[in-house]
Amino acid sequence: MEKVFIVGVGLTKIGRFYNRSAASLFREALERAVSDAGGLKPRALVVGNMTSSVLMQQDSLGALLADHSGLRGIPAFKVEAACGSGGAAFYSGYSLVKSGLADVVAVGGVEKLTEANTPVVTRALAQAADADFEVFYGATFTGLNAMLARLYMEKFGYTEEDLSYWPLRMHEYASHNPYAQLPKKTSLKEILESPVIAEPIRLYHAAPIGDGAAVVLLVRGEEKAREIARQTGKDVLVEVAGVALATDSVDLASRNDLLTLESTVKASRAALEMAGVEAGKVDYVELHDAFHVTGFASLEDLGFAPKGEAPRLWKEGRFGKGDKPEVNFSGGLKARGHPVGATGIYQIAEAAMQLRGDFPGFKASSPETALTHNIGGISTIAAVTVLRRVK
Amino acid sequence: MEKVFIVGVGLTKIGRFYNRSAASLFREALERAVSDAGGLKPRALVVGNMTSSVLMQQDSLGALLADHSGLRGIPAFKVEAACGSGGAAFYSGYSLVKSGLADVVAVGGVEKLTEANTPVVTRALAQAADADFEVFYGATFTGLNAMLARLYMEKFGYTEEDLSYWPLRMHEYASHNPYAQLPKKTSLKEILESPVIAEPIRLYHAAPIGDGAAVVLLVRGEEKAREIARQTGKDVLVEVAGVALATDSVDLASRNDLLTLESTVKASRAALEMAGVEAGKVDYVELHDAFHVTGFASLEDLGFAPKGEAPRLWKEGRFGKGDKPEVNFSGGLKARGHPVGATGIYQIAEAAMQLRGDFPGFKASSPETALTHNIGGISTIAAVTVLRRVK
Repeated sequence: MEKVFIVGVGLTKIGRFYNRSAASLFREALERAVSDAGGLKPRALVVGNMTSSVLMQQDSLGALLADHSGLRGIPAFKVEAACGSGGAAFYSGYSLVKSGLADVVAVGGVEKLTEANTPVVTRALAQAADADFEVFYGATFTGLNAMLARLYMEKFGYTEEDLSYWPLRMHEYASHNPYAQLPKKTSLKEILESPVIAEPIRLYHAAPIGDGAAVVLLVRGEEKAREIARQTGKDVLVEVAGVALATDSVDLASRNDLLTLESTVKASRAALEMAGVEAGKVDYVELHDAFHVTGFASLEDLGFAPKGEAPRLWKEGRFGKGDKPEVNFSGGLKARGHPVGATGIYQIAEAAMQLRGDFPGFKASSPETALTHNIGGISTIAAVTVLRRVK
Repeated sequence: MEKVFIVGVGLTKIGRFYNRSAASLFREALERAVSDAGGLKPRALVVGNMTSSVLMQQDSLGALLADHSGLRGIPAFKVEAACGSGGAAFYSGYSLVKSGLADVVAVGGVEKLTEANTPVVTRALAQAADADFEVFYGATFTGLNAMLARLYMEKFGYTEEDLSYWPLRMHEYASHNPYAQLPKKTSLKEILESPVIAEPIRLYHAAPIGDGAAVVLLVRGEEKAREIARQTGKDVLVEVAGVALATDSVDLASRNDLLTLESTVKASRAALEMAGVEAGKVDYVELHDAFHVTGFASLEDLGFAPKGEAPRLWKEGRFGKGDKPEVNFSGGLKARGHPVGATGIYQIAEAAMQLRGDFPGFKASSPETALTHNIGGISTIAAVTVLRRVK
């Protein structure tokens, strides 16, 4: 079967847009992706989104966004996998184009959290956890991650300060990213003095709440991809070399090992195997760091650090510019932002731009292979994508 | 590329199950489908569902259902396209198996509406309509369909009684269907004396609210399908010959023609073209009749009756046993029931069983080609599938 390529990417800045609708944000991202691909028109649309049913009281989101983006009529639907909705939508969109059902597929993500007040948003995001076994008893999503962070710190012997090097570096990277929600540098002092939101997680240890939309355009066949690259003056192609999804229980109590994100392990192995790449050969990574602990555990479970070692390696400067892999130069969920269902598409678009060499923020060292990692819940679902630069 | 086949189907009875969870219903349907396919284990799961986010306060539904069905770990996600979620999930699941991403895919649908009180369910179902332009002003989904029914009656000169022949026949068929929510015969008198729920729609003109789950199993390649058929003592294969999705605006005010379901027209043409079949050659149809008017308009827009003629032809006895096509022998949404996100999968499972000759209700006349039609909103999304019997 023919290979699949990313031929266009479009992002909005992430922020709190009280005067913008989800459809307006989505249209902006889609138009940028279409323009990036030289005007190529999508023939199908898959949208990742978590909260539209609860916060916008709107279903039929796929059709709505297609219509409001000038694409009324095309096949369109929404994929939901909590915070991993974008990654899952990409997996679905990849299969649409790969199978021949559509020859140009737009995969997008959008989330609109602004306008709802904080308790309502907190409640909506908690729907990533188990309604009957966790949320019913008062758990919030941050609360569950706080328990995990405490366990990780105790088991592997880390302090609050050790884990704070994650957000420190993410803010540094984000300060270069024009799409980032928090493009400001910070300091260990500022991080450690920020308010506790669920002990031991402080405000600066967690991704912010924000609105945003991201779109990538997929086509089938190297010839088609090369034609578009020529038209748009790009000298490399971005091939989708591997895609994988894996799941775990929603409720944490029934997990085998709380500190191993098993679906991340599985999806990473499967996507790398599909791409024919070993973890050690990956040059660039965008991974899911909704909290500091999520970032470190993901680095380990993706296969880039031994279990329990990531914070130590990170503090020593590993995974930065010139290392292998280079990680989260976007600023990550922590500082680029985390518009939930759109996050997985932001990561893929950023990785694609790093491969092309035109990411408008902190630049990777000319990577050839990139991996993105997007999760829903505490890796209840994990979506891993491997991208390859083709000359 | 290799063809895709349905090798197992599993349904629950539809009803109001106060003592059953969505996961429990889903597991029952999945286990039946697995058993029907001789124990074949799904490697990926796509779930159609509309209301879990609002009525169950549960996201990550794909992973949850995989885990609770003994399939923890496999790729799984939810597809949302309002009442067309099942049909859209099938389209997505088809592409997963066709593209080679997974070799055995379970596509299911589940909905759990019982427990929520009627105003809450009515509000949740109204999310199929436009939140900003319709629901904000007080429209319910039944209310919007009532306006459409009034327009249809006025434009084409039909009475309330004329349209009541739809539910009359659906109840007759459903009385044979062991999975039906309303397996009781009725009379024109009973229909016309039932309470008005949104004039001119009476209770008996509308699909009931119910819970249910349905699963079909897909494999790639005729050899694999034939091996399973042999194992399970089936003498025919069911090929998925065509699949298509199309969309329209969510809000009705911006449609070109209120009485033409344009996405149904498009999806029907595309699915038939993919299958290489003309509408006139289709033997059996399961179509989306959430209301009487939806049934008649769909018959027309699928290409089986001239616009405005369906109620007259229907009253004359067309589309019944021995006619071409035979329509909705399950009892339709009207009397089999309409567990929203599961409905599209019920239709596909029923059509597959009619092709195999083992549907346990009112039997079609040995059809070779079947078409199913599932919509979300007022055909905001339309999913059409064409199935073919292969000896």
